[in-house]
Amino acid sequence: MNRVAGELSDLQVDAQGNLRHLLTIEGLSREHVVRILDVAESFLGVNDKSIKKVPLLRGKTVVNLFFEPSTRTRTTFELAAKRLSADVLNVNISASATTKGESLLDTLRNLQAMQCDMFIVRHSDSGAPHFIARHVEADVAVVNAGDGWHAHPTQALLDVFTIRRHCADFTQLRVAIVGDVQHSRVARSQIHALNVLGAAEIRVIAPRTLLPDSIEDMGVRVYEDIHTGLKDVDVIIMLRLQHERMLGALLPSEAEYFSTFGLTPERLAKAKPDALVMHPGPTNRGVEIESSVADGPRSLILEQVTNGIAVRMAVMSLIAGPARPPEPA
Amino acid sequence: MNRVAGELSDLQVDAQGNLRHLLTIEGLSREHVVRILDVAESFLGVNDKSIKKVPLLRGKTVVNLFFEPSTRTRTTFELAAKRLSADVLNVNISASATTKGESLLDTLRNLQAMQCDMFIVRHSDSGAPHFIARHVEADVAVVNAGDGWHAHPTQALLDVFTIRRHCADFTQLRVAIVGDVQHSRVARSQIHALNVLGAAEIRVIAPRTLLPDSIEDMGVRVYEDIHTGLKDVDVIIMLRLQHERMLGALLPSEAEYFSTFGLTPERLAKAKPDALVMHPGPTNRGVEIESSVADGPRSLILEQVTNGIAVRMAVMSLIAGPARPPEPA
Amino acid sequence: MNRVAGELSDLQVDAQGNLRHLLTIEGLSREHVVRILDVAESFLGVNDKSIKKVPLLRGKTVVNLFFEPSTRTRTTFELAAKRLSADVLNVNISASATTKGESLLDTLRNLQAMQCDMFIVRHSDSGAPHFIARHVEADVAVVNAGDGWHAHPTQALLDVFTIRRHCADFTQLRVAIVGDVQHSRVARSQIHALNVLGAAEIRVIAPRTLLPDSIEDMGVRVYEDIHTGLKDVDVIIMLRLQHERMLGALLPSEAEYFSTFGLTPERLAKAKPDALVMHPGPTNRGVEIESSVADGPRSLILEQVTNGIAVRMAVMSLIAGPARPPEPA
Repeated sequence: MNRVAGELSDLQVDAQGNLRHLLTIEGLSREHVVRILDVAESFLGVNDKSIKKVPLLRGKTVVNLFFEPSTRTRTTFELAAKRLSADVLNVNISASATTKGESLLDTLRNLQAMQCDMFIVRHSDSGAPHFIARHVEADVAVVNAGDGWHAHPTQALLDVFTIRRHCADFTQLRVAIVGDVQHSRVARSQIHALNVLGAAEIRVIAPRTLLPDSIEDMGVRVYEDIHTGLKDVDVIIMLRLQHERMLGALLPSEAEYFSTFGLTPERLAKAKPDALVMHPGPTNRGVEIESSVADGPRSLILEQVTNGIAVRMAVMSLIAGPARPPEPA
Repeated sequence: MNRVAGELSDLQVDAQGNLRHLLTIEGLSREHVVRILDVAESFLGVNDKSIKKVPLLRGKTVVNLFFEPSTRTRTTFELAAKRLSADVLNVNISASATTKGESLLDTLRNLQAMQCDMFIVRHSDSGAPHFIARHVEADVAVVNAGDGWHAHPTQALLDVFTIRRHCADFTQLRVAIVGDVQHSRVARSQIHALNVLGAAEIRVIAPRTLLPDSIEDMGVRVYEDIHTGLKDVDVIIMLRLQHERMLGALLPSEAEYFSTFGLTPERLAKAKPDALVMHPGPTNRGVEIESSVADGPRSLILEQVTNGIAVRMAVMSLIAGPARPPEPA
Repeated sequence: MNRVAGELSDLQVDAQGNLRHLLTIEGLSREHVVRILDVAESFLGVNDKSIKKVPLLRGKTVVNLFFEPSTRTRTTFELAAKRLSADVLNVNISASATTKGESLLDTLRNLQAMQCDMFIVRHSDSGAPHFIARHVEADVAVVNAGDGWHAHPTQALLDVFTIRRHCADFTQLRVAIVGDVQHSRVARSQIHALNVLGAAEIRVIAPRTLLPDSIEDMGVRVYEDIHTGLKDVDVIIMLRLQHERMLGALLPSEAEYFSTFGLTPERLAKAKPDALVMHPGPTNRGVEIESSVADGPRSLILEQVTNGIAVRMAVMSLIAGPARPPEPA
């Protein structure tokens, strides 16, 4: 953990070691992550029930503060908050609006003065949620819902939660992350979470143009060839290819990307026979993944969505709920 | 009932004969329709009370999945769901968005994975709600909130509910539907509902250019002249004239439409002395109907709006509520 | 009180003297205003609690009917309504939409037919909320959330509430309102509220071009020089400068405005040593007010925001809640 990560850790964990914000997986202990996953497990049951509601955040106000539009992520946080009985306020702010009349800090202070209890922040600038966390009052919590290329911790937590439901022992697991790691906050957070849980081996499979320079420092092995990279892995995590990347010189075309890095049944056969297939969604069928694989028996893509609600409920209730959240069932 | 209607009926009614989705009036039995109207009657009382809330859908998530914008219809479903204590998620999807990154089916599967319980679907393509109903899981219900020119079943149900509150015996009723039947999903559903309830006579009054070719097969009598068409009817249902129809060659002008088919006090006088005047709204005053008639003593236009909430509450609670909804008061 | 104000008063206060709508401060008695402030005081406690919810408007439907966009004001009313346990419907109507298909009155009647209980109205036309109040049914309440240049009564109430929490005796108070009084509905309502509560002296400080002709008739003293105007005042209320005013010939430039009327530490020093600084927000830092003053120890700007929720809860519960709202703590 470097100095910056240490500071972030101080920001999101209080002196008693309790989670105060969720900004990044960096600096979280194994105990923190396991606690979140255990509480999420108890919420899976809630979401299966006919009455999908618990009163843990009743009377609290959760603000979806989205500076970057994302209906899908906003929706999962909104549902998670409502199922915890919170009041939800959706505030979409275009970057231009905050520069015009009112600064980000003024917006924040105003919402805080309205006694909002939690900010779910999505921003195209890396570090924006940390900036906000640094300025909120003692009783206000911040959850990072994706910042720039930096982090997307709830996505990584729901991913490891999904893996854990199928393979309890991370120390036996070989995981491959395939695609545009360079521009992926999801990949960064996944690597941190897998490291915290002691995954046996983390591989990244990508063309060099889509890998950060110092990626090996994160404890991963790099493969540029998908056939060797997938060999004998237990879990395959495909990344979403952002369409806007295509415009640049980084990638020749969607068809060529698919022909080199797309997950096909043939490539999947290189992995272990019962390997799990994951994708944060929404999938670009025929670009990152063949439809037959996305919809196939090993795909956990929709299970990830379901687990995402439970994990977000766990994070929210742990940082803003009553002192003792429900014991896992 | 033709073959296609039979299939739709199989889709929306389960093996025990219970309503599972509401996609179209076609294939519903008299018992189904009467049951909905009876339950709606019990909700009218709820909406009159100071506390307009019953816990029938508490903990359920209702998604307004609108592929075609409609603030008014969305609002009525949102209010109905909230008064049943459901959590409501509004998802507006432009047709282009679903074609771009994510297919309709992927959107659906994702919302389903978030454990949503009901989809209220509005789409400009006829059959879209049926397509969705065919693909949802066993515990997810679909309500058609208007699809293309095909059907708008809750509108038709609220219309017959409104009529029934004034004239209990449909077998004595002569009903005239006036306007652009060709492009009206409302008219199609109204004709089906009136037929199911055994209306004595259903007339459609429209220029031939605004009538479907085989309209007589639906059991209606066609009038091109409004004066003879309205003679001795008990109920007059005016259709909304869609402005976009005006652009084409189908109609000369709004003024000429009003002079030929607009409902004036003089024309209303052709009907029975206590004839009811209805319109699904929003009215184009001076196009389909003269203001004095829309606001006159025989107009039920606002009563239709009120009844629309109760009827939608009835449909939602019957298809997604506890096994036994409240007995009608 | 002139004739028009008398009529408005008749509209918003019923025969028993109870508040029925809140349209303007004009015509309200001292008792009305004090009652609102006292009830707001009891809600401040609610908003401090971990569970910020009281069931006073449970089962009621509150509609934010905004014909002029304002995320901030809409948000405060939405939070206030939700903390009273009401169902909230946000309806944004562009002025063009109401002229196109459906008149304002038709929109209103429809929402009313859906059994909505309260309309929070914001409109760029002065008098629009009064027009609506004149047409709603007996059990529907209207709150003016800002109409044209006319009135913004909840803002004025939260301002006097904020002042009262610091200086209980208005008869000892000298208050200065600084800025574009001419185009400010906030200033008009503030002057009325301060008069009702018997403020010792109300000053307005502005260039003549930004003052209404007959401003002295409202019982205020006019100062064109900020140094003499601020001398020995207890409260300074800065008005927001609307950017669009800059385009006209009324003002030379933002920089020149600041140099003549901006609140700096030097100018603040002219007022009493413990003078309060207020601003309705959002502030234009460096235009109306220097950042060091806006964020300084005498600034109540964020306290105003907090109090705004409590005051709006008070107004809503008094006009639409059960017969007896909670006694102030």
